[in-house]
Amino acid sequence: MRTIRLAVAGLGVVGSETVRLLRSRRESLCRRLGARLELTAVCDRQAAARRLGLPTSVRHFTDPGRLAALPGVDAVVELLGGLEAPRRLVLGCLRRGLSVVTANTRLLAHSWDELRTAATKGGGRLHFEASVAGGIPILKALDLSLAGDRVEAVYGILNGTTNFILTRMAEGMEPIDALRRAQELGLAEKNPALDLNGRDTADKVSVLASLVTGAWLRPDQVRTQGIQEIGIEDMAFAETTLGRRVKLLGVARFPEKAESRVEAFVGPSLVPLEHPLASVQDEFNAVLVRAASAGDLMFYGKGAGAGPAASAVLGDVMALGRELLSGAKPAAHRSGPAPRLCDSDCAFYLRLGALDRPGVLSAVTATLGRLGISIATINQPGGCDPKNVPIIITTHPTSPGTFGRAVRDILALPNVSRRHTVMRLLP
Amino acid sequence: MRTIRLAVAGLGVVGSETVRLLRSRRESLCRRLGARLELTAVCDRQAAARRLGLPTSVRHFTDPGRLAALPGVDAVVELLGGLEAPRRLVLGCLRRGLSVVTANTRLLAHSWDELRTAATKGGGRLHFEASVAGGIPILKALDLSLAGDRVEAVYGILNGTTNFILTRMAEGMEPIDALRRAQELGLAEKNPALDLNGRDTADKVSVLASLVTGAWLRPDQVRTQGIQEIGIEDMAFAETTLGRRVKLLGVARFPEKAESRVEAFVGPSLVPLEHPLASVQDEFNAVLVRAASAGDLMFYGKGAGAGPAASAVLGDVMALGRELLSGAKPAAHRSGPAPRLCDSDCAFYLRLGALDRPGVLSAVTATLGRLGISIATINQPGGCDPKNVPIIITTHPTSPGTFGRAVRDILALPNVSRRHTVMRLLP
Repeated sequence: MRTIRLAVAGLGVVGSETVRLLRSRRESLCRRLGARLELTAVCDRQAAARRLGLPTSVRHFTDPGRLAALPGVDAVVELLGGLEAPRRLVLGCLRRGLSVVTANTRLLAHSWDELRTAATKGGGRLHFEASVAGGIPILKALDLSLAGDRVEAVYGILNGTTNFILTRMAEGMEPIDALRRAQELGLAEKNPALDLNGRDTADKVSVLASLVTGAWLRPDQVRTQGIQEIGIEDMAFAETTLGRRVKLLGVARFPEKAESRVEAFVGPSLVPLEHPLASVQDEFNAVLVRAASAGDLMFYGKGAGAGPAASAVLGDVMALGRELLSGAKPAAHRSGPAPRLCDSDCAFYLRLGALDRPGVLSAVTATLGRLGISIATINQPGGCDPKNVPIIITTHPTSPGTFGRAVRDILALPNVSRRHTVMRLLP
Repeated sequence: MRTIRLAVAGLGVVGSETVRLLRSRRESLCRRLGARLELTAVCDRQAAARRLGLPTSVRHFTDPGRLAALPGVDAVVELLGGLEAPRRLVLGCLRRGLSVVTANTRLLAHSWDELRTAATKGGGRLHFEASVAGGIPILKALDLSLAGDRVEAVYGILNGTTNFILTRMAEGMEPIDALRRAQELGLAEKNPALDLNGRDTADKVSVLASLVTGAWLRPDQVRTQGIQEIGIEDMAFAETTLGRRVKLLGVARFPEKAESRVEAFVGPSLVPLEHPLASVQDEFNAVLVRAASAGDLMFYGKGAGAGPAASAVLGDVMALGRELLSGAKPAAHRSGPAPRLCDSDCAFYLRLGALDRPGVLSAVTATLGRLGISIATINQPGGCDPKNVPIIITTHPTSPGTFGRAVRDILALPNVSRRHTVMRLLP
């Protein structure tokens, strides 16, 4: 029976769980793969290796760079966290023809082309199911199962931290308390900036879109807005008046007859209450895939945590194992022309604060009218503070660019506060 | 550039759509696969081939057996329908080392071992994603993505026809009208017996369980109950009094520390309204997978129809194409010891009809008490007909075998009608 030798870099929460499962599930994994999976080396700065009670046969390093050069290793599992050290390790492995499993979204989103090139040249394979939506097998679904279909769009709730916060806010909890609660439960990091500002979701949209088209969509090409401007007054108004729920969506659309065009954005979105994505609560993730033949598919599950991430990592290790055992040549990486960004019309929600003076509302509506934006609803829910009376406007579908210009013009009006909230309405 | 030569057997709804898409998506499939997919031959009893406007280079047969012997064909797509002709064709192909894609659930469920043996001996590969839950990529998820996890249970709404009927019944439509509506919409066949009696769902449970364990669970080993006994009075009572919705579930559970044990059943089940499976309406399918590490995952989409089935078939064709191009040896089929069936305790719902006489209820409860079954609720909603007064009982968790015995004893009581409804309560 053959043996596949693994090295695991990074023994944080996910790395420790991966190592633990590699050992506790050793027999069933071996039976399933038809080969032994052997942990040959680990790399970790802390003393986690000792804590895990690894046998002395497992070599221990503190410098991840050493793993790429280790003789006898078939694959490296990269779970270091960060960007530069993982990048050096993964590129080093791929260039030497070593296969890699990684859960590192940022690395993939920011170095997609570099990693692909290294893999193609060096002959290493790269698996990264855990990098998007944790335990939900969305990447293999898009890459393998839907390979014969035409993916038209992907709509994802891809960040458990913000979905947990938005769920609490919909129940009336203030954002700052919701964040603290998430941190207490281990669902948010000490510095949650990349969650709250939408950049983590944008990285995931980058990976999803790049996988669908075969051409790198850089994360800075994803128009990104976070949840920082959302207040519980928006959530309450959305549920009671609009029949909608606020979700931070990452969206990538692939218009037909325009193969290299991609529309990609991240932002708080108003989802109809009866829409399947509206019922995705707490730290759960979900991805809705719209495919030309299969129709709407939804994938739902835990997007983070040691167990779900380790499940995806081990699934990749097994896939890699099968490939190595079968003697298959690595499939050529698809590459397409660099995507050109496009926009499609969308209905918008805008909450403004204004001084309680006559003429403000007519100035706002005149601004929208001048740019040809058609108003669907206007509400002035009333407020205690005459210096900051809320005005909530929803529009009919309009171009995001035009709407952005209108918002800038409106915020420049006298008596209108700079603080405002913009959301998209999911059709 | 290499060419993969395909023959398609059966040009019904799914076969025609598959052939149509193979031609209309030719370029994108070729770009994605890095090889050409060429339709070499079709087999069909009717004149569908002409209707599809196939070029004369595509050979046309009426005897499916001819396809297995056709030189130059790399893979056969079996979409014939029925059992015997597909079985002969698929076995013939696999034994000659030809690879096969099929959507035929019954064939897989009833001939699992025979097909696996033929594939192993002959060297052909067998793909069958479309056989369970249509366009939902649940089989690749279980087989590949979750290969490193431990699947503990699978709960599926796997039959669109009955889910459509149950959805209409929950709205108050009589079963017979709901069935007629499904037939008008093309969602039910003229003879819907295998849908209504749960056998189609049992076939799907058989395929799911066999895939998870690697050992054939025969469909006749799946304890199966259909929806024929369910009335709209059950649906109404469930929603208003129990806060639950009736769904026809196919369930397979794989108890820990008992690798070769499987609990498998199909039956109308009462699902809590807030459970994700409760919101799966109309003809949609969904599969909830409970995995030890990933937790609960749900997959949702269209389980039937030309588009979803063709999407899954083409996904399999592409997977097969990659395998053939990579030069990979077929993976050895896992095989485990034949599964031993087991049961776990479950809460039950029982609706009886009885003569409006004193003493009936106490005889019923005494029967349950004698068998040690603990009653959770008793309701006598009242009825117009004193000869058939409804009694609705829910129990605390009890062994299905004991409960079955209790039902038999109760139906033998004087003044109790033979007509009754039994459902499980999903925890």
